[in-house]
Amino acid sequence: MLDALREEVLAANLDLPKYGLVTFTWGNVSAINDARDLVVIKPSGVAYENMSASDMVIVDLKGNVVEGTLRPSSDTATHLALYRQYDDVGGVVHTHSSNATSWAQSQRSIPVLGTTHADYFNGTIPCSRLLTPEEVEQGYEELTGSLIIETLGDTPPLTMPGILISNHGPFAWGKDAHGAVHNAVVLEEIARMALATAQLNPGLAQLPDYILNKHYSRKHGKNAYYGQNKA
Amino acid sequence: MLDALREEVLAANLDLPKYGLVTFTWGNVSAINDARDLVVIKPSGVAYENMSASDMVIVDLKGNVVEGTLRPSSDTATHLALYRQYDDVGGVVHTHSSNATSWAQSQRSIPVLGTTHADYFNGTIPCSRLLTPEEVEQGYEELTGSLIIETLGDTPPLTMPGILISNHGPFAWGKDAHGAVHNAVVLEEIARMALATAQLNPGLAQLPDYILNKHYSRKHGKNAYYGQNKA
Amino acid sequence: MLDALREEVLAANLDLPKYGLVTFTWGNVSAINDARDLVVIKPSGVAYENMSASDMVIVDLKGNVVEGTLRPSSDTATHLALYRQYDDVGGVVHTHSSNATSWAQSQRSIPVLGTTHADYFNGTIPCSRLLTPEEVEQGYEELTGSLIIETLGDTPPLTMPGILISNHGPFAWGKDAHGAVHNAVVLEEIARMALATAQLNPGLAQLPDYILNKHYSRKHGKNAYYGQNKA
Amino acid sequence: MLDALREEVLAANLDLPKYGLVTFTWGNVSAINDARDLVVIKPSGVAYENMSASDMVIVDLKGNVVEGTLRPSSDTATHLALYRQYDDVGGVVHTHSSNATSWAQSQRSIPVLGTTHADYFNGTIPCSRLLTPEEVEQGYEELTGSLIIETLGDTPPLTMPGILISNHGPFAWGKDAHGAVHNAVVLEEIARMALATAQLNPGLAQLPDYILNKHYSRKHGKNAYYGQNKA
Repeated sequence: MLDALREEVLAANLDLPKYGLVTFTWGNVSAINDARDLVVIKPSGVAYENMSASDMVIVDLKGNVVEGTLRPSSDTATHLALYRQYDDVGGVVHTHSSNATSWAQSQRSIPVLGTTHADYFNGTIPCSRLLTPEEVEQGYEELTGSLIIETLGDTPPLTMPGILISNHGPFAWGKDAHGAVHNAVVLEEIARMALATAQLNPGLAQLPDYILNKHYSRKHGKNAYYGQNKA
Repeated sequence: MLDALREEVLAANLDLPKYGLVTFTWGNVSAINDARDLVVIKPSGVAYENMSASDMVIVDLKGNVVEGTLRPSSDTATHLALYRQYDDVGGVVHTHSSNATSWAQSQRSIPVLGTTHADYFNGTIPCSRLLTPEEVEQGYEELTGSLIIETLGDTPPLTMPGILISNHGPFAWGKDAHGAVHNAVVLEEIARMALATAQLNPGLAQLPDYILNKHYSRKHGKNAYYGQNKA
Repeated sequence: MLDALREEVLAANLDLPKYGLVTFTWGNVSAINDARDLVVIKPSGVAYENMSASDMVIVDLKGNVVEGTLRPSSDTATHLALYRQYDDVGGVVHTHSSNATSWAQSQRSIPVLGTTHADYFNGTIPCSRLLTPEEVEQGYEELTGSLIIETLGDTPPLTMPGILISNHGPFAWGKDAHGAVHNAVVLEEIARMALATAQLNPGLAQLPDYILNKHYSRKHGKNAYYGQNKA
Repeated sequence: MLDALREEVLAANLDLPKYGLVTFTWGNVSAINDARDLVVIKPSGVAYENMSASDMVIVDLKGNVVEGTLRPSSDTATHLALYRQYDDVGGVVHTHSSNATSWAQSQRSIPVLGTTHADYFNGTIPCSRLLTPEEVEQGYEELTGSLIIETLGDTPPLTMPGILISNHGPFAWGKDAHGAVHNAVVLEEIARMALATAQLNPGLAQLPDYILNKHYSRKHGKNAYYGQNKA
């Protein structure tokens, strides 16, 4: 069942150590099928070096395991909340990548400091509030999903393909599993450079909106002229 | 004698360069046998690339060499003090890993800044005091072991599987040699992110206890639901 | 057409990931032919691992594609402005390398802090102003080329083989594609060390001019005595 | 002539990129023969990947080339000044390694912040003054050697096997070429951790002398008990 999607999700998970985003098993990638009723996700706590496509777990949108012998990622409920909310999100990834997590631990949003950021994220990358004790009690993982949705607000998710959960780390997403991981790599690199920039210029000189818009629209939307896909 | 444990200790020592925790010979891992009367430990000052299982040294809990032609690690007495004190500690590791050592050199404990920390260490990772001139004179390595025990105080060692020795570096431990090294890798990564966090937010916004408890208990104890081991 | 130059430009582009200067496709190298009427440049948005010499695009100095089926780099107009202006520039490179980009995002020029800098860059590496909204509107990439020329002013380009574009990143150049990439690697390393230096000594103790001149002239000009090329 | 020493010096030079101490050709290692009248040194500006033992240059203590077709390192005169002054120095190395160079660019000596430092360097690692314009004019490389000797003062060179040249970078040495490179690696790692320590604790809590002495004497001198060489 969903063999191609299993392979795709496996490959995306294996890209996490390849791009230096994870230590041990600290990350997980999922993707949703075209019918948008089944999600393929990494099993919980399994080492990347030993994972195969058959280890991937298939769950429905309520989190019931439909296929697979292993327990799905402990963050599954967060992924599902995003798929239920956003029709254009096809893949979700969570990591504890070093620089993005450091911003999250600092409870600071990442302002637009340069064109690298503007090429992918159409504005400040927000850092969420903390969940309350009641929320943690009620349903920690699912309400982390709600928190992401609350933090994004009216922003279309593919124009802001990742955010920071306060004192936790980044979640990122994309059209599919591969795109989600791509955006997680970008977010980590933006965070790395923003950290160095904050050291050199604590006042943080933000990129003016007219250059942000120029760069974002070079790569996205109907007038995009970056890459080989003629719009 | 203890051939399987020798192999295990060798493998754990070889993981130190693999995970970037050591330069040259600056680290050592040991493990204790099930009878808890013999300890297998790395020889002193031998390069990792040339080590074999037969180079591992077997000592009793007083530090007498029971088997092996090489001199055991100069830190052996510290390891033994921990095995004598803590029945649930099966492996011990010492490194000079870059970020954890930098915190130790700063004489600062690492507060709980995020869930990465909370997943493994159930509270602030303490930095010890300095040994006094008399203690250094009396028995530097053994009293470093006593210092670790003093610094841990009433904390069960497996809930705080590593600490910092002031102006020296980290010691970590676990149920066995592999677990000890795993915790040393985690400690180094926590220290790396805490350093960046301190640069971004010198006031250091600590993770609230209710999230610390949630994350620690997701992975540890009878209600754990992370990974594949059903509690 | 220009087969040798295609190979040279391909090799120079592949050096970008080799030297850790790029994430994904965030960089591009070009070179001009001896007749100085045709430029070979990387295609836009193509992954390095899949690029071949035949993917390189040949354009004239107005940016018309003369040979090649792919779209040239979106930064082509910037490269061309430099070739039109500077007769001794044979290769141009643009990256978002982490440390140089962080200085650019900080809107700070890099002063001469040491002999590493003095060996290659004969003075402060300037950071440009921002383009105005009108300039961005009129011709973003071409006017970025004009901005580089404005920022260099009277400085001969091969004595200052790279600069920073404010809130964007570095451009570098050289006698040929290989030399351009070499200078981009040097600029990144200078930026890395300047960042650490700024952390240790925010006042920044600049290298005196008499040592700058000594080092620069050891490697460049008719009295150079570094390397194997007898002047 | 001196074939074994050539191989040793080649191997030591190749260790520089292996340990991440050099970019391009920015480093050089030499060693002196037992008779202490001939020095084998890396040629100037030759890429490490292409170097062979036969490329090594043999010079006498006045700097005359005795054997070899290539020009010796431009820093040869600095190396020779050290061999003439110190009978127990058998190998010398110069690099622009990132962290040690950053301290040099900051014009700051590295205080003893931890036992990693104390294991190898018996006190603060000094940063030199700058050469005067007259000294640069008179003989830059040879007087850099004099500057190292002045900076060391009465300190026996093997107890302080490396220093920082202000706004330039580190020189290190040892009993032979291999030992010199070993000490350069240690110096770089000490500098890396001292940078992070300075960020966490700008006041810098130095290791007390009684622990410095304990650690230094564990590894050096007649009562050493680290490693496998029974004193």
